[in-house]
Amino acid sequence: MSQVKPSLYTSLSPALLHLHDLNNTVVVIIDVLRATSTIATALYNGARCVIPVDSVARCIELGKNIDSITAGERDGQIAEGLQYGNSPFEYPESFIKGKTLVLTTTNGTKLLHMALERGAGEVITGSFPNLSSVCDYLLASKQNVILGCAAWKDKVNLEDTLFAGAVINRVQEHFSINCDSSKLAATLYDAAKDDLYGFMHEKNASHYQRLTGFGLEKDIRYCLTPDVANVLPFYGDGKLTIHSW
Amino acid sequence: MSQVKPSLYTSLSPALLHLHDLNNTVVVIIDVLRATSTIATALYNGARCVIPVDSVARCIELGKNIDSITAGERDGQIAEGLQYGNSPFEYPESFIKGKTLVLTTTNGTKLLHMALERGAGEVITGSFPNLSSVCDYLLASKQNVILGCAAWKDKVNLEDTLFAGAVINRVQEHFSINCDSSKLAATLYDAAKDDLYGFMHEKNASHYQRLTGFGLEKDIRYCLTPDVANVLPFYGDGKLTIHSW
Repeated sequence: MSQVKPSLYTSLSPALLHLHDLNNTVVVIIDVLRATSTIATALYNGARCVIPVDSVARCIELGKNIDSITAGERDGQIAEGLQYGNSPFEYPESFIKGKTLVLTTTNGTKLLHMALERGAGEVITGSFPNLSSVCDYLLASKQNVILGCAAWKDKVNLEDTLFAGAVINRVQEHFSINCDSSKLAATLYDAAKDDLYGFMHEKNASHYQRLTGFGLEKDIRYCLTPDVANVLPFYGDGKLTIHSW
Repeated sequence: MSQVKPSLYTSLSPALLHLHDLNNTVVVIIDVLRATSTIATALYNGARCVIPVDSVARCIELGKNIDSITAGERDGQIAEGLQYGNSPFEYPESFIKGKTLVLTTTNGTKLLHMALERGAGEVITGSFPNLSSVCDYLLASKQNVILGCAAWKDKVNLEDTLFAGAVINRVQEHFSINCDSSKLAATLYDAAKDDLYGFMHEKNASHYQRLTGFGLEKDIRYCLTPDVANVLPFYGDGKLTIHSW
């Protein structure tokens, strides 16, 4: 008898997450530009942990501890009252090693808290810099999966959908995928995979416009590069730490 | 000075419609399998009008008039208490000419009422059978546009997204499109346009599965065929009638 495969669904926006049952499910939080790329990078570079919080006030409160960095953005820029922003380049090993990063962002950290409130079985974060770790974990854990795109203020975006497609491209043989959003994401990734940056540029994706407007092309290129910070951020006890299995 | 182009946005699910301002905007209701394909077909075949209603009870009530046909489905099958279903093949000229079709469906007619409640400037319906009429009207009217996908119980589907992409493919030069959902739809359509039916089959789209389970391959093929019922259903005074301009 063949084994029943676990299911995989994609939620293209936080406004669609309620359509899915998150119990006993691994939810992958995807905010490619830039929260989840930055989370992977900070942990890869030796941060003790990343504490994702959903408000600037909470970020400042938690940041009062020694060795804590408060960081985050609203609308793509450093939020008032915080020390650092949402760029992976702000967190080299020489700066972040051994420290705690308390992070709040417009979309990614909000979606993470939404998934927790809705009873997600496990929460991990995904981005191109840690693509292989995410795929390896999903294949190893053999649980049902929701790929949760953080989007931009609930509007579907290209980069998070592309990452969902990249994951599906790698793991699809091992999951039952009865979900048109996943098929849409996989088709998008197929069209873009030979040159992700070129695709974002050619399509003039909305977030591409927003970040290049701030002079952040370098961030975009990094955030579209697979496995440059290949660790698995796993949520537990209020923080994200590297998970080995 | 160059003229400012009207805007075009795509809403991939009714659960995302609230992200858009519908005032002074043409909203295209898209429910390819099968409500909007059937609406175009009934009008093309001489129906006096189509009255879209959002409940079976209202459908039965309005159907008490002479020369009215009550029709509709819930979950892909004829709803209890109604006479006919949601297949375009149920409405040949010999049957529907001169009659009023009172129609309720799981997704399409519900989205239409949602758009009206949210103050849409104009409401038209779109499907492959009336693709050219929709595009010609959007180009002629020069108003802002929302392509509203009816989806399936709020879950994004391939066929409505494909139709949005087909419209964008034809009209994009004449609109300002700062919307990743539109770029996603256009990319999907590019990947599928050479063989829409083959694409739906290969991807095993969720609604493709649902309808082929009911033996409705013929409906799917028809509903993916451009311009076989090329009229423009336009909403006004509680009903959809053919609009000429």
